[in-house]
Amino acid sequence: MTRPIRVLVWGENHHEKHDEIVQRHYPDTMHGTIAAGLRELLGESAVVETATLDDEEHGLSEERLARTDVLLWWGHMLHDAVEDAVVDRVREHVLGGMGLVALHSAHFSKIFIRLMGTTCSLRWRQADDRELVWTVAPTHPIAEGVPQPIVIPSQEMYGEFFDVPTPDDLVFVSGFSGGEVFRSGMTFSRGHGRIFYFSPGDQDYPVYHDAGVKRVLSNAVRWAHQDRERVAPRIGMYRENDFHTAREWDGSPL
Amino acid sequence: MTRPIRVLVWGENHHEKHDEIVQRHYPDTMHGTIAAGLRELLGESAVVETATLDDEEHGLSEERLARTDVLLWWGHMLHDAVEDAVVDRVREHVLGGMGLVALHSAHFSKIFIRLMGTTCSLRWRQADDRELVWTVAPTHPIAEGVPQPIVIPSQEMYGEFFDVPTPDDLVFVSGFSGGEVFRSGMTFSRGHGRIFYFSPGDQDYPVYHDAGVKRVLSNAVRWAHQDRERVAPRIGMYRENDFHTAREWDGSPL
Amino acid sequence: MTRPIRVLVWGENHHEKHDEIVQRHYPDTMHGTIAAGLRELLGESAVVETATLDDEEHGLSEERLARTDVLLWWGHMLHDAVEDAVVDRVREHVLGGMGLVALHSAHFSKIFIRLMGTTCSLRWRQADDRELVWTVAPTHPIAEGVPQPIVIPSQEMYGEFFDVPTPDDLVFVSGFSGGEVFRSGMTFSRGHGRIFYFSPGDQDYPVYHDAGVKRVLSNAVRWAHQDRERVAPRIGMYRENDFHTAREWDGSPL
Amino acid sequence: MTRPIRVLVWGENHHEKHDEIVQRHYPDTMHGTIAAGLRELLGESAVVETATLDDEEHGLSEERLARTDVLLWWGHMLHDAVEDAVVDRVREHVLGGMGLVALHSAHFSKIFIRLMGTTCSLRWRQADDRELVWTVAPTHPIAEGVPQPIVIPSQEMYGEFFDVPTPDDLVFVSGFSGGEVFRSGMTFSRGHGRIFYFSPGDQDYPVYHDAGVKRVLSNAVRWAHQDRERVAPRIGMYRENDFHTAREWDGSPL
Repeated sequence: MTRPIRVLVWGENHHEKHDEIVQRHYPDTMHGTIAAGLRELLGESAVVETATLDDEEHGLSEERLARTDVLLWWGHMLHDAVEDAVVDRVREHVLGGMGLVALHSAHFSKIFIRLMGTTCSLRWRQADDRELVWTVAPTHPIAEGVPQPIVIPSQEMYGEFFDVPTPDDLVFVSGFSGGEVFRSGMTFSRGHGRIFYFSPGDQDYPVYHDAGVKRVLSNAVRWAHQDRERVAPRIGMYRENDFHTAREWDGSPL
Repeated sequence: MTRPIRVLVWGENHHEKHDEIVQRHYPDTMHGTIAAGLRELLGESAVVETATLDDEEHGLSEERLARTDVLLWWGHMLHDAVEDAVVDRVREHVLGGMGLVALHSAHFSKIFIRLMGTTCSLRWRQADDRELVWTVAPTHPIAEGVPQPIVIPSQEMYGEFFDVPTPDDLVFVSGFSGGEVFRSGMTFSRGHGRIFYFSPGDQDYPVYHDAGVKRVLSNAVRWAHQDRERVAPRIGMYRENDFHTAREWDGSPL
Repeated sequence: MTRPIRVLVWGENHHEKHDEIVQRHYPDTMHGTIAAGLRELLGESAVVETATLDDEEHGLSEERLARTDVLLWWGHMLHDAVEDAVVDRVREHVLGGMGLVALHSAHFSKIFIRLMGTTCSLRWRQADDRELVWTVAPTHPIAEGVPQPIVIPSQEMYGEFFDVPTPDDLVFVSGFSGGEVFRSGMTFSRGHGRIFYFSPGDQDYPVYHDAGVKRVLSNAVRWAHQDRERVAPRIGMYRENDFHTAREWDGSPL
Repeated sequence: MTRPIRVLVWGENHHEKHDEIVQRHYPDTMHGTIAAGLRELLGESAVVETATLDDEEHGLSEERLARTDVLLWWGHMLHDAVEDAVVDRVREHVLGGMGLVALHSAHFSKIFIRLMGTTCSLRWRQADDRELVWTVAPTHPIAEGVPQPIVIPSQEMYGEFFDVPTPDDLVFVSGFSGGEVFRSGMTFSRGHGRIFYFSPGDQDYPVYHDAGVKRVLSNAVRWAHQDRERVAPRIGMYRENDFHTAREWDGSPL
C-alpha cells in the first residue's frame, strides 16, 4: 500500500581505495556496508541504493535526488572535492523535505556546514578510545530498540565543544575512555527537511557492522522519511482572509 | 545602586553530624562551604545566608522566602523529613520568581520532583570515578569563565538516563572514568522562576572547594536572580481589547 | 502483523448531561465524537474505546490502563472529582510509556498539572473568537496533512502566558480574532511517555467535528504510541563495566 | 569598573533617502532612531554608534567589528548590495562571540541566512494590521519589563511558517489583526555568539519610537553582550589527559 522508502547511501569512496585497514573492515566499501545494514533491518519497507564521489555529478543528479526520500552521507578527506553546484542541489532537496543522515566526519562536509551555519568544529583523537553511546531521550523514535549503551570497543574520539546549533532533539551522548563526551546523536529541522547527525563511524574501525549502530541508522531512515511534495518554503504575500494564495509583491499569484 | 542578591543556601545538615569523612572535607558544613564560595566570588553583589532542616520550619518561613532571591538546595538522606507544607511554600515562591539551584542528590528532593513532574531517577555508583564536566553551551551565562573541562578527581558517578523533562538549556555534560555520561548542568523555567540543576557535589568528596565548581554556582546565582514582584502566574479572564484587567468567571476584576 | 493501537478516549461527561448546547453539538457525547473521528481516520490501525468519570474507578483501572497505548483526556468542570489514586495510576502509566493527549481544558486537570509541575494557568475569554491554528513545525509528524491554517469559526479564546514548561516541540500556534495568541499544540516527554497538548476543543463549539482537528488528533495518537514494555525509569546502582545490572544500595540486583 | 558595551547599529539607509513616509517617521534615520533609543535606556552602560551601507566597507571593517560587542542589523531592499567579504567578516565575528540583533526584514539579509542555514522565508502583507507582541517566556532576560502585550497599532504582517531553525528560546509571539501569528522574538547561538531576531520594525510605521520595542532592544543588547576573547570555535586534536593543548593532525600545537 505505502511504497518503500527510497534510500541513497552516499560515500566518498576514498579510503576504500587507498587504506588497507578500511579494506579489511569494509571489503564491500563503507557505503556498501551501511546500505547492507539498512536492507537487513528495513527489509521490504525500503529500497536502498548507493552513490559515490566518483560517479557523474557525484551520483546526485537532480533526477536522482528527486526520487530519494532519505540521503545518508559519509565523507572525510575529500569534502572539498564535492562540487558546489551539487551541494546547492542537495541543500535545496533537504529544504524541500528530503531526509538527511550525516555520518561521523560528515560534520565537516560542505552540505552539513551550509545547513548548520556554524563551524561544526570539535575536538578529536585517533587513539582507540572505547566509545559508549548513551540514550538520553528514550522516547525518541531513533532510540527505539537501541542498547543502553551501545558499546564500541575502539573508535576515534570526538569531543565537545561541538559547534553546531542547539538541536531539536538530543538523542545520544557518547562517553570515551579518555574522559571526553560528545553529543553523538542529534536531530535538526531545516526548511521542510529532517536531519539526523550520528557520530560513531570512523573508517579505521568496523563500527558499521555493529548491531546497535545498524539499528540507529535504520530507525533514523524511518524517522527522516516524509511523504510530502518536494518543495522548499518560500516567501509569499497573502491578502487578508485569503490564507491559501501566495502572491508576488504586485499581487499576482505565485 | 542595585541592591545585593539575597541568597539562601539550604543544607540538610545530616552527614555533617554523623560522617567523619564529611566533617574532614567540610569542617564548616557543606552549606557553610557553599555559602563561603559564593561570598568569595560574588563579593558585595550578594548577601549569602544559610538554613538547615533543623531550623524551625526548616529555616524556610514565608517571611524568609519572601526576602530570598535565589535558594540553593542540598539534601540527600532526609528528603522525606522535609515537611510538605514547606515544599508547597518553596514551590509557590519558585513559581513566583525565586531562583532555585538544585545540587547533586537534590535530584530526589520533594521540591525538585514536584517541579519536574518526572521520577528524576538516574544511575549511580559510589566508586571514586573521575568526573570531567564539559561545557556544551559556551554562550550560556552560567558557563562564563568556567574551565573546559572542570576536572573532579573523585566523585560519585551519576549516569543516564536521567529522567527529567527536556531542559531549556543543556549547559554541562559530564563524563566519568567508568564510561558513563550525565547531563550535569541544566536550566528549567517553571512559572516565573528560573531553576538550575548541577550534579557535581557528593558529600564524600571535597567538590565544593573546587574553583570551577564555585564559579559555576556563583554564575548560577547571578543567572537565576530576577528583579520582579513575587507572584506566580494565575488564570484570568480578559475582555476583548482589555489586555490588562484579569477577571474572574463572572467578570469581576481579580 | 503489527497489532492495532489501543486508544482510550476519556471524557468528563458532565456538560453532555446538563448543557443543551453541548447536547446539540455532540449528540453522541464529546468523547464519543472524538472516538468516532479517530476510528474514521485510523481505521483498522487502531481500536478506540471510551471511558468517563462516571465509570467505576473512572474507567481507568490498572488493568484498563495496562492495555491502553494512548489515552486522550477531556475534562473541564469536574477536575477535582477525579480521585487522586486514579491520577497517580495514570501518571505511573505515562511515565512507563503510555501516550497522553491532553485536550483543551485538560490544561487544568490534575494529571496534566502533576506532569508539568507548573500552574498551567492561562488567559481566556468565552466570546466567539475565530481561532486560526498555524503550523510552525511543518516537519513534525503531528502536522502531517494538516491545513495551514485550521480555521475554527468560533472558539473560546486561550491566550498567553500559558504557564507550562518549555515544550520539546512547538507544533501549532493559534491566533484569535481578539488579537491573543496561544501555543496550541505542544509535545512533552515525561519518563518513558510522550505527551501532546492540543487546545482547540471547547464544549460550546463543534470543534471536534472539524476535519483538520480530527487529523491532528489521529496524527497525535500515532505519534504518542510506543511499542515498549510498560515500566517507568527507576534509580539503579551499576557496578563498573556492568552497564546492564541495576542494583540496590547494597549491591543486590533490583 | 566594567567598561560600557560597545554597540553598533547598522542601517541600510535606503528608504531614508527615497521615501517620504520613512523620512516623516524617522527624521533622524531608522538606525539613528534605534541608536537614540538604546542610548536613552542603556545610558552610561553602553556606547552606541551607527554605520550604513554607504560607508566604506559598509562601516564594518575588521578593526570596527573587533571593537563591537553587539551589532544590530536593519536592511530591506539592498541585501544583495552587501559585499560577500563583509558578510564573511561579520559571520566570523559572530562565531567569535560578537552579539547580533537582526531586525525585521533582516530575516532576508545575507548574514542572517548564512547563520541560519535555511531559506528564512515567511508570509507577509503590507496592510496596516495591528500587531500584538506577546511574551511567552516571562523568565527570559529580554522580556524583563516588557509590556504584556506590546501594542503596535499599525505594522506590516509577518506570518508563519517562518523558515528558521528551532530557536534556543522563543521569547515573543505576535498576533496580527488579520489572524496570522509569528514567532517574533527568538534567540539562537552560533559558535561563541548570541543572536536575537526581533520582527517588529517596518520602515513604513514608527515602530522604533515605541517604548516597549525600545525596552526589548536594550534588553537584547545587554543579553547578547559577552565579555570574552573574540575567537571562533576551531577543530583541534587533543592527546589523552591533555585537555588544554589543541593540536594539528601531526601533533604540533595549534
